[in-house]
Amino acid sequence: MIITLLTDYGSDDEFAGICHGVIAGIAPEARVIDLTHGIGRHDIRHGALVLRNALDYVPAGIHVAVVDPMVGTPRRALALRCADGRVLVGPDNGLLLPAAQRAGGIVLAVDITTSPHRLEPVSATFHGRDLFAPAAARLATGVELAEAGTLLDPTQLVALELPRAELVDGELLTHALIVDRFGNVTLDASHEQLAGSGLGLGRTAELTVGASRHRAIYVQTFGDVEEGGLILYEDAYRMLAVAVNRGSAAALLGIERDAEVRLRPL
Amino acid sequence: MIITLLTDYGSDDEFAGICHGVIAGIAPEARVIDLTHGIGRHDIRHGALVLRNALDYVPAGIHVAVVDPMVGTPRRALALRCADGRVLVGPDNGLLLPAAQRAGGIVLAVDITTSPHRLEPVSATFHGRDLFAPAAARLATGVELAEAGTLLDPTQLVALELPRAELVDGELLTHALIVDRFGNVTLDASHEQLAGSGLGLGRTAELTVGASRHRAIYVQTFGDVEEGGLILYEDAYRMLAVAVNRGSAAALLGIERDAEVRLRPL
Amino acid sequence: MIITLLTDYGSDDEFAGICHGVIAGIAPEARVIDLTHGIGRHDIRHGALVLRNALDYVPAGIHVAVVDPMVGTPRRALALRCADGRVLVGPDNGLLLPAAQRAGGIVLAVDITTSPHRLEPVSATFHGRDLFAPAAARLATGVELAEAGTLLDPTQLVALELPRAELVDGELLTHALIVDRFGNVTLDASHEQLAGSGLGLGRTAELTVGASRHRAIYVQTFGDVEEGGLILYEDAYRMLAVAVNRGSAAALLGIERDAEVRLRPL
Repeated sequence: MIITLLTDYGSDDEFAGICHGVIAGIAPEARVIDLTHGIGRHDIRHGALVLRNALDYVPAGIHVAVVDPMVGTPRRALALRCADGRVLVGPDNGLLLPAAQRAGGIVLAVDITTSPHRLEPVSATFHGRDLFAPAAARLATGVELAEAGTLLDPTQLVALELPRAELVDGELLTHALIVDRFGNVTLDASHEQLAGSGLGLGRTAELTVGASRHRAIYVQTFGDVEEGGLILYEDAYRMLAVAVNRGSAAALLGIERDAEVRLRPL
Repeated sequence: MIITLLTDYGSDDEFAGICHGVIAGIAPEARVIDLTHGIGRHDIRHGALVLRNALDYVPAGIHVAVVDPMVGTPRRALALRCADGRVLVGPDNGLLLPAAQRAGGIVLAVDITTSPHRLEPVSATFHGRDLFAPAAARLATGVELAEAGTLLDPTQLVALELPRAELVDGELLTHALIVDRFGNVTLDASHEQLAGSGLGLGRTAELTVGASRHRAIYVQTFGDVEEGGLILYEDAYRMLAVAVNRGSAAALLGIERDAEVRLRPL
Repeated sequence: MIITLLTDYGSDDEFAGICHGVIAGIAPEARVIDLTHGIGRHDIRHGALVLRNALDYVPAGIHVAVVDPMVGTPRRALALRCADGRVLVGPDNGLLLPAAQRAGGIVLAVDITTSPHRLEPVSATFHGRDLFAPAAARLATGVELAEAGTLLDPTQLVALELPRAELVDGELLTHALIVDRFGNVTLDASHEQLAGSGLGLGRTAELTVGASRHRAIYVQTFGDVEEGGLILYEDAYRMLAVAVNRGSAAALLGIERDAEVRLRPL
């Protein structure tokens, strides 16, 4: 059985390593894959989108995600079985929902807040270690999901708020959903909105961030323009993105997460 | 058999990856867990405390730690069997001692400086690769500890210096032991000192760093205060710590490792 | 079978984790070792040298390297069998060549650009996921290399450009090949050039970077000089390097990759 981990623990501290240790103790046969521990601190939406995007490329297993600013408060902890067989484990703050939707929807939701598999005493600040990793490891050993806690109504889970791109007067109003380490910026326009805007391969767009205007050409890949060139492209998850060939679009445009990016075909 | 690694090698270079390679060549059946490679460069004490804290959550195995500013000089290299069966491998600079104590104390100490399992020629600067990883891998394959080097008197090992918290006139004089990537700061007060100071859940303390004074409330977890609130709490290793909800206590207080932090109940 | 990964993906994003996922889906029995994901972005030469240096310490297997600024353009993708049995997989930009040479030279070169093992649709920007990881995983399951693509003439591969140290009038003109996270700087002088220059253990050299002159003593290891001392030494890959004991030579000397460093024995 595969267990994947996705957290905002970073790589400087021992938090992820300890989760590996806990799992190795409970489920020595499980294979653990670190999807990433580099989610922005407390950035639930970032974690939710990365988890959703990553799952398509990982065999079905137990998928743990911990981006958990409300750890230690009465927020619920969840284990969700999806229609495609995957089990998602993490806090009830919206983090798991886009992945659950991608995995065909939730067929069984369990509240594992007071799971019998917790490590006692449960700390107030490190539920990755004390709650989520041990629950996932027990599930990997074959424990039934329904025995991991109490059944929940999936419609009662905490929702995830996402910005929404709009097409207004021929201009596409999008938002910076994800900024990766290369400074590439994923936008939230759908394929339909993109088609409706008239943008597409080979077209040039005026790209406006705040008061600053730029020109970007819609191409397939970085190497289609010269070094330093600003491009629009479909990224590896088939989402609209903006990048600079061998540079950082986030730096060039002064974009942070949630920034509005307006696009108008020229 | 499990082998764990804890180093100050960071994640930018190939040093940790090469240790994995060396182990895979000698002990292909061993499972290797990276506790962390993010220990502060040459920060023996940081490594020692993190190793001690982490071991409680990892199955017994061969536990390699490399924070080794004196690599290449005549400092000794060690393999230590502890009362609970764990074997600790690393340089003789105090790094292994808190973990050894937590693991029930040393029952067998071996000097592996000139271990027959070294990779020859041994470099002067990368003993993780040439000495510690191969020695650990051989032990994982079943080699007897006593055959890994020459017996040592455990009382002759290099000690680790730690600051000591004190309770003076009702004020708790503590020190910043660990600063994690979130800016949470672990202090060195014991539970007894804390009880003696009168601090506890729900109490507010005056917290003094240098000439700067702050108020912190002793709570269970971050979410018990508003965003930006300064708290005292028992961290996931049951040590006294100071944090800012969704912020960085280290940044707010201007604290670095070893800084004195004075606490007085209000 | 072992698969190793070396990329410039960093540890903040999920790119490396997704490659693990893809491999786990295709070749569940393969063991995956991360050599490093910290190669400088698009720094082919850095990746090439680290891969070559690392391979000596890793069992023979499938060795994937992705530093790929021309991803999505018509640059070729390669799988190379070497004389010692290793298989190298990556883009045709010089990245694999030093490792291939170290592994005894190329005995079979295959163009896997349109490999039957690609994940369709292949993205224009993430060939680690869509091309290199799946090809490597299939090879790990026993697929014949010749079936992974079309045969290539190994002499037609894109070469790697490296600076060349020179010995001029008793002065060694070297270049900064690699700067590691500790600020240690590997130079490109060969052992023969070093011997010819008269430098060696115990000798002091005048070290000139731009207009700035320093003195460095040639020693075995950091601890042979006081804290802050500038040294020349043979690094763990037996290459000439410059370092500061408990400090950063790169910072002290203001050196970046490719900087010229001149050495003259005093």
